[in-house]
Order: sequence, then C-alpha cells, then structure tokens
Amino acid sequence: MPRGELEALLACQKEEFEKFKRAGLNLDMSRGIPGRGQLDLSQEMMGILTTTADCMGADGKDYRSYGMPDGTPEAKAMFAEITGAPEQNIVICGNSSLNVMFDTVAHNMLLGVSKDICPWSKQGKIKFLCPSPGYDRHFAICETLGIEMITIPMTPDGPDMDAVEDAVRDPLVKGIWCVPKYSNPEGITYSDATVRRFAALCPAADDFRIFWDNAYIVHDLYDEGDDLTDIFAECEKTGRSDMVYMFVSTSKISFPGAGIAAVISSPANTAYIKSVMAMQTICHDKLNQLRHAKFFDSREKIILHMKKHAALLRPKFEAVCDAFERELSGTGIAEWTAPHGGYFISLDVYDGCAKRVFSLMGELGVKLTPAGATFPYGRDPRDRNLRIAPTYPPTGELATAVDALCVCVKIACIEKILLG
Amino acid sequence: MPRGELEALLACQKEEFEKFKRAGLNLDMSRGIPGRGQLDLSQEMMGILTTTADCMGADGKDYRSYGMPDGTPEAKAMFAEITGAPEQNIVICGNSSLNVMFDTVAHNMLLGVSKDICPWSKQGKIKFLCPSPGYDRHFAICETLGIEMITIPMTPDGPDMDAVEDAVRDPLVKGIWCVPKYSNPEGITYSDATVRRFAALCPAADDFRIFWDNAYIVHDLYDEGDDLTDIFAECEKTGRSDMVYMFVSTSKISFPGAGIAAVISSPANTAYIKSVMAMQTICHDKLNQLRHAKFFDSREKIILHMKKHAALLRPKFEAVCDAFERELSGTGIAEWTAPHGGYFISLDVYDGCAKRVFSLMGELGVKLTPAGATFPYGRDPRDRNLRIAPTYPPTGELATAVDALCVCVKIACIEKILLG
Repeated sequence: MPRGELEALLACQKEEFEKFKRAGLNLDMSRGIPGRGQLDLSQEMMGILTTTADCMGADGKDYRSYGMPDGTPEAKAMFAEITGAPEQNIVICGNSSLNVMFDTVAHNMLLGVSKDICPWSKQGKIKFLCPSPGYDRHFAICETLGIEMITIPMTPDGPDMDAVEDAVRDPLVKGIWCVPKYSNPEGITYSDATVRRFAALCPAADDFRIFWDNAYIVHDLYDEGDDLTDIFAECEKTGRSDMVYMFVSTSKISFPGAGIAAVISSPANTAYIKSVMAMQTICHDKLNQLRHAKFFDSREKIILHMKKHAALLRPKFEAVCDAFERELSGTGIAEWTAPHGGYFISLDVYDGCAKRVFSLMGELGVKLTPAGATFPYGRDPRDRNLRIAPTYPPTGELATAVDALCVCVKIACIEKILLG
Repeated sequence: MPRGELEALLACQKEEFEKFKRAGLNLDMSRGIPGRGQLDLSQEMMGILTTTADCMGADGKDYRSYGMPDGTPEAKAMFAEITGAPEQNIVICGNSSLNVMFDTVAHNMLLGVSKDICPWSKQGKIKFLCPSPGYDRHFAICETLGIEMITIPMTPDGPDMDAVEDAVRDPLVKGIWCVPKYSNPEGITYSDATVRRFAALCPAADDFRIFWDNAYIVHDLYDEGDDLTDIFAECEKTGRSDMVYMFVSTSKISFPGAGIAAVISSPANTAYIKSVMAMQTICHDKLNQLRHAKFFDSREKIILHMKKHAALLRPKFEAVCDAFERELSGTGIAEWTAPHGGYFISLDVYDGCAKRVFSLMGELGVKLTPAGATFPYGRDPRDRNLRIAPTYPPTGELATAVDALCVCVKIACIEKILLG
C-alpha cells in the first residue's frame, strides 16, 4: 500500500479511536474469568448439603471432620469420570490447581521428586521449558522460585518437540509446562504425535517432570471437541509414567473461587505426593468435595453441564473471531486462532506492535492481558502476541471492545509500518 | 510400699485389665477431634448460601468467582473479632492452619522471610526451638523439611524462657513453635511475663520468627477463661512485630475439615506473605469464607457458640480428671494437668513407662497418641508423657477408657518399680 493511502487509513482509524474514547468503555478482558451466567449453572450445588445426613460420605463417614488427606472416594470418582484416570492415581486437593502446581514445584525444590533423590534446590540453577506463548502464572511460579526459563516455540501441533527433545539433554532441565488441550492462549490441542513424543522423552535428568495442566479437559465449545491422546496410556507403553503430573480442577466447571482441584500421576508419584501432603495438612475441604460429587454424579451430567457453558461461551468466541475476520483478514498485520474450546484467543499482530496495542486499549478503558505476559519473564521477543480473554464481558460489550481492538491494531501497525 | 504389697496390687490390676480386655473396647483417643454433637452446632451454616444473591459479598462482588487472594473483608472482620488484630494484618487462607504453617516454613526455606534476606535453606542446617511436650505436627513439619529441632522444657508459665533466650544466641536458630493458649498437650496458657519476654527477644538471627499457633484462642471450657497477653501489643512496645506470625482457624469452632484458617502478622510480613500467596494461588474459597462470616457475624455470637462447645466438652475433661484424681492421686506414679480449655490433657507417668502404657491400652482396643509423639523426633527422653484427647468419644465410653487407662498406668508403673 502506498504511503499516502496508509496515512489516510491511519487518520481514519484515529477518528474511530476518538469515537470509542468518547463512548467511555470500562471492560476487563485480561483474565479467563467465566461470566456470571456460567456461575449460575452450578448454583444448585450450593444448597446440596444442608442437613447433618447430607454431610455423611461413603461408609457413613462424617465429612465435616478431619481425615482423608488425599480426598474422598466420591471426589475421586468424579475426577475419574472427567479424566479417565484410575481413582487410586488421583489425589484431591484444595480449590486451586495453580496452588497444587506451585506446591508441587516448591516441594520438589525442597524435598526432591521422590524420597531418594536430591532436591531440585540442591542441584544448582535448574531450568524449566516454557512453550510460548503460554500461561503467565506457570512462568510466575518459575520466576518466584528462581527457576531459569527456556522458551520453546509453539507449533499448530503443540510445543516444538525437536526443541524439547534437544533441551532435555541438559540434566539441569527439570520440567516443562504444558496446557495440552485448548492451550492458553492459542487454544491448540497437542497432536497425537506430540503426546507420543512426550511419553517417549528420554531426558538426561531422572527427575525431569512434565507438568500437564489439563485445565480445559472437558471445555469444548462445540459438540465435536478436540481429541487429546491420553498421555498416561502412552506412558504405560514407554514405561515412563513417573515423568508426568496431570493437574485438573473444576474452576471452570463449577466456581472459579470455590471448586476442587486434583493432581493425577503414577502410583509411585501419587504415593509420594500423599506422603508429603500428610505432613502439610490434615485434610482438604471434604464438604466441598461432596457438594461437587453429588452435583456432578456421572460423566453424562458433566458433559451436559459443559454444553451449557459452551452455549454461553460460543457467541463470545465467535464475536471476536468474526470481528477479526471482518476487520483484519487479508491485511497482513494480524493472525489469530479460532479455538474449539478453552478460554482464550491468541492474536499475533505486526512485530513490535503488541505493547502499543495494549496501551491504546488501556486509553479506551479496556484492560487486556499485558503484552509480553504470554512469554517467560514477560518478554515477547517479537512483541506481537496478545491474549484475548472473551469470556467475562457480556457479548454486546465484548463486540464493541473487539471493534475497538481492531482499530487499535490498525493504528499500531500502520504507525509502525510508516516509521519503517 | 513393701514389695509384697506391690505384687498383690499388680495382680489385682492385671485382673482388672483382663476384665477390660473381655469387654472389648474400640476407641480412638489419639487426636483432638471434636465430637459429632459439636459439629452439629454449626450445621445451620451449611444452608446459609443458597441463592445467587447469597453468594455476593461486599460491594456486590461475586464470591463464586476469582479474586481477593488474601481473603474477603467479611472473613477478615470475623477473625478481627476473634483475635483483636486489625483487619489489614490478617490474611485469610484455606481450610487448614497446619497447611498455612507448613507453607510459611516452606516459603521461608525457599525464599526467605522477606524480599531482601537469604532463604533459610541457603544458610546451612537451620534449627527450630520446640517447647516440649508439644504438638507433634509442628515437629513433623521441621522433620520433613530437614530443620534440626531443639527441645525447650515447658514450665507452668510456658516455655522455659531462660532456655529460649539462651538458644536464640545461635544465628542458625530461626524459629520457635508456640501454642500459647491451652497448649497442646498440657493446656498451659503462657503467663504475661512469658509473653513479654517473647516480645523482647533479641535473637542473633534477624530472620528468627515466632510461630504463634493460637489454635485455642476462644476455646475456653469455663466462663472464666485463661487470659493470654496480646503478643502483638507487646511487640509494638519492643518494636519487634516482624518477629511474630500468629495462626488461627475455625477448625474447632465450625468444622475441622471445612473451616477457615488465617495468618496474622506485622504490616511488613503481611505484605510479603500476600506477595508470595499471589504467586501460589488465584484465591482461596471465598464462599466458605462468606458462609463462616454470615454465621459468626459478631464476637457475641462466637462466644455464645464456644459456650455450647464447652458445655459438650466439660463433662469429658472432668470425667478424665476425676478418674485420675480418684485412681492416681497420691500414688506418686502420675501427674496430670486440668486445663481450662483446649483439646488435651497431659499425663506424666513414672519415668520409662509411657510406651508400656500406650501398648497396654492398644491391647485393650484404645488408641492413644503414641508415646513420644509430644517430643521432637518422637523421642520423649524420660518416656513418661502421654497426651490424652478426651473430646471425640462419647462421655460414657470415655469414662470406661479412662478407668482402663488408670489400670494400665498402675500395671506399667508397678512393673517398672518391681524391676527396679
């Protein structure tokens, strides 16, 4: 496009920008927060335990009291339905899978991945692989605990496995963060080949662990969801089941602040996790476990429930993708994903423009996830990735915000091009 | 007593023992677990959040969703009523104060007690002071995390402060475990002088911390409860507020498995704890916080509620102490405490007899806390202390069990005396 045309286009977009500014938006699209209508879907659960009799679990055990540090049989059965994992490999925790991940890394730092192995913190400056763009809170755990992060590029099939296989030759590489289904933020589901290559990994470090954050395991937007190969089944074949921790939660099934989280692993890892947990706490909240298990008492009920979530989420995802298609398609200044599930849409803009887009949106009153957050240390080497979280705002406001976003993308990119 | 009389007494007690054996007891007195009647006192709380509107907190905030990692204003107000601490110094956590204590030690190991100080794990083999007899789970945290434990004798006024003041001259001494009110297991409340000496401690280590586990802060058995001097008020005077973490929970106010815990500290410590917690989790369960705050909405209501607990617990404590008085008083083979609150009675038997008593009780089908558990590494140097947990069994069964206990104490001690 000739320079004059670009300048005209920029002026035109700036007028649009001023219009949005006058309209005075006030929206938060920074985090993957379910909308209020989604929370109402589980409201019935709140009244499910009322009487003393309601609070009794298997064998008449009083769930108001102490005991069962690794969780109730009912909650294990629920997560077995969700994940397909055997109940004896499931450890039920508190309300937050992030907390379980933080604790798992922290305990491995202090105590090692098993009883007879040297703690990570005593092995020098250890490293984690961080497929990126990825989840900022994973990276924050590493940064907090002083673990060096190595960026691994993402591909449409998941992390670049050549890079992963190469990196794990370093014995100081102790872990990798994965969101294998509907990845945060791209919504990519790892291919069968990727999962198999993970299960077949031969890291130099015996105490290398895959942090398989299956946050969106049943979070399909459409009847036909993506299929994720079962990594534990693959690990059975390769004999490397101890290499994987899977994390799941009901945060985006029931209530983000009051759900149930679990960690699933091999029998050896599970026994070890239980032994540490027994020192850390007497038990987690079994009443909330029972509330969930009574409400989600079959796989069918869970799937039906997730379809109700999907019905509320689909229009929001489609509003974003439709606007991108209409405004940005063919311009060469943006690429995006159209996920079949999860909580995010990833938008790549012209190199060097993401921070500017973030800041322009801030001027309009729309809070996006900070540019750079999807990379280790908050540094996107190409300054191009933006994570769009469409789930929280009502669809109408969201549509306005995305129109504004397209304007900001155009302004930032045209300015950049004009500057050369 | 002449040898012949002792032998006759022993034979007589062994007959009693056989009678109990034939009766076939099956009781657990090993842990401080509230009885079922106590749990029923809070049952109404279970139905307190039902509708969507019920789940909204201050400023109409939706407590089903993410946010407020350090807790809700309502829960902070509740713990302010319980503790007298200012709300801004209170951080609300999950359901278990033990978990908060474990995490506090673990985070100090990994990250240090504040931003600019060396992590405990990088300072060599650090040490904790363990007033004993004490709480076995405190000691288990140290043992798990490889912290050396130093036994500090208990006195009727609390820990032997001469020994504490002497021990903290070692810069590797980084902490001390305290249950300052109705201590576990002796039920001792630290004297005013003891609390003042704690507040005036000048440890060699800047990063020395007092772990003030105020588990029984409102857990009086009688209308006139013991008074515990406010350590934070004393620390204000000495300028050493950063030296203290206070831990509290509703585990023995509402539900042991489904309560709310909190940590209270100085403004600087609180800010640091919040900053670490924000990396560890997005939030704790705010719905359970709201449930508690709605049910316990004033200090009066909490005190009234604790009087109901006391009415259920007093007969149990008195059944134990009455039996001890009747059977063991004046024998010279046992000493015990008669606490005004808390969850335990401490029984000291003739030196070298506690393990034998534990094992004899096991033969009768009564599970006591293992002998030795009240000391670091499970090693009671005089093998004499037994922790009696009278709260869980119904009063009738408890009375039988204590009669059996007195018989076992006599058998063990007479045997020991006869053996010389």
